[in-house]
Amino acid sequence: MASVTRDAPIGVFDSGLGGLTVARAIREALPHEDLVYLGDTARVPYGTRSAHTVLRYAQTCGQHLRARGVKLLVVACNTVSAVALPMLRVELDIPVLGVVEPGARAGVAAASGKRLGVLATAGTVASGAYPRAVAAEDPRVEVFARAAPLLVPLAEEGWISGEVPSLVAARYLEPLAAANIGALVLGCTHYPVLIDVLREQVALCCGPDVPVVDSAHALALELSALLTDRDLSTTSTGPGGLQVLVTDRPSDFAQVAGRFLGTELDEDRVDAVDL
Amino acid sequence: MASVTRDAPIGVFDSGLGGLTVARAIREALPHEDLVYLGDTARVPYGTRSAHTVLRYAQTCGQHLRARGVKLLVVACNTVSAVALPMLRVELDIPVLGVVEPGARAGVAAASGKRLGVLATAGTVASGAYPRAVAAEDPRVEVFARAAPLLVPLAEEGWISGEVPSLVAARYLEPLAAANIGALVLGCTHYPVLIDVLREQVALCCGPDVPVVDSAHALALELSALLTDRDLSTTSTGPGGLQVLVTDRPSDFAQVAGRFLGTELDEDRVDAVDL
Repeated sequence: MASVTRDAPIGVFDSGLGGLTVARAIREALPHEDLVYLGDTARVPYGTRSAHTVLRYAQTCGQHLRARGVKLLVVACNTVSAVALPMLRVELDIPVLGVVEPGARAGVAAASGKRLGVLATAGTVASGAYPRAVAAEDPRVEVFARAAPLLVPLAEEGWISGEVPSLVAARYLEPLAAANIGALVLGCTHYPVLIDVLREQVALCCGPDVPVVDSAHALALELSALLTDRDLSTTSTGPGGLQVLVTDRPSDFAQVAGRFLGTELDEDRVDAVDL
Repeated sequence: MASVTRDAPIGVFDSGLGGLTVARAIREALPHEDLVYLGDTARVPYGTRSAHTVLRYAQTCGQHLRARGVKLLVVACNTVSAVALPMLRVELDIPVLGVVEPGARAGVAAASGKRLGVLATAGTVASGAYPRAVAAEDPRVEVFARAAPLLVPLAEEGWISGEVPSLVAARYLEPLAAANIGALVLGCTHYPVLIDVLREQVALCCGPDVPVVDSAHALALELSALLTDRDLSTTSTGPGGLQVLVTDRPSDFAQVAGRFLGTELDEDRVDAVDL
């Protein structure tokens, strides 16, 4: 591990804007840390691409953030976390955290010994990343993962309450309810935007006591512990900054980002980079 | 124009699999022609990308098909048709047809002097391609174009009938109905998969006599006329072949392709190419 300064920013990388829900959770848990967010909007979505392609994109983005001097890389994309973490950990000389493992750990804790439901993109489900991460935590916990491709456009459209998202969520939850899950993990960073409707439908379809686990919060807690353990917490006591980089269409990104970040994002804080 | 043999295949290019609805319409109109279809699945969707990025991708794909000896290029992607046709026409020495102009012409004819509604991706709507193409045909016809991002994942999921697609379609049609449109153009090649539910909702929301125009059929008719005019029709009298090339995940492509092509696509007819 190369020496990095504790006051360097934390890098957050996602295929697009979904990872802003992770940036939001990190800013809430660690308000003094500076963040540099990179959304690969020129090549989004990763969820439908082959592992080979995802590896290539992740490598480019990880190296770009490293070159900007980040002290740690958060991979705020389930697809990349599912397939590219080992490669990034070898290639980069800084700690690399994904969203799958913290989400799986929090899910196992929440499921109280019952089956664990996961909603995610087709790519994340096909990768088998959640069953693997859950097995590493507690091999007795069975995982029911299902692809929910309509949730991303619903979140991006801002159709986050009412009949359409409720019906879509109920349809995706049907087989999970039939499997009698004890908790549901949101295995895609877009889904926290829909958390109210998902909680409501989980309560209706799966039972009122079935918790919904947001991987972003689980990751923020683990990140906080890791910074303390490795003496990497910032010495700053002021509010942390947020720089946003995208590979395509910065102004469109700024427009939709507020819903994901939980606060408006000025267009002049979004810069285009060519990777 | 370089000399090309009339028995060479027709190239059909799309960002992904939506263009198979265009390939289907062409095969129905011109059953003896050979087709080479290229779906740029590694970089799909184009609809949310900048014009600069779309131009770059279109150039690569167009040149690849030209190098395979196609006699004519059909751009079966509204986003590419909207921004890259002039560039492709300059760069390639063969005729290039897009879907926007035939769709706009058929829409103007169908709207009987009333306003023309268009549903399309965000990129196609932002490009203003339909209002431009309609103005070139008949400047008195007003165009109401609206982005409908949920229709693509609905088509890909196969949720093509019932409550969810009906509600989604009705919601997108609301402002078009309020504008009192005389016809609706499907400005994205995915949408013909949902044509039954769209026709039903157009009848309910906009009126029973409002026709739904499928750009793919309009293009196939213009293509047929162009081949005859330029003496480019094949001399073959047997059934035309179909070769399918994709830039990522050929086996996934074959699985979903049937719904778009209207007939099953064997996995061994889909080849991966690296562009």
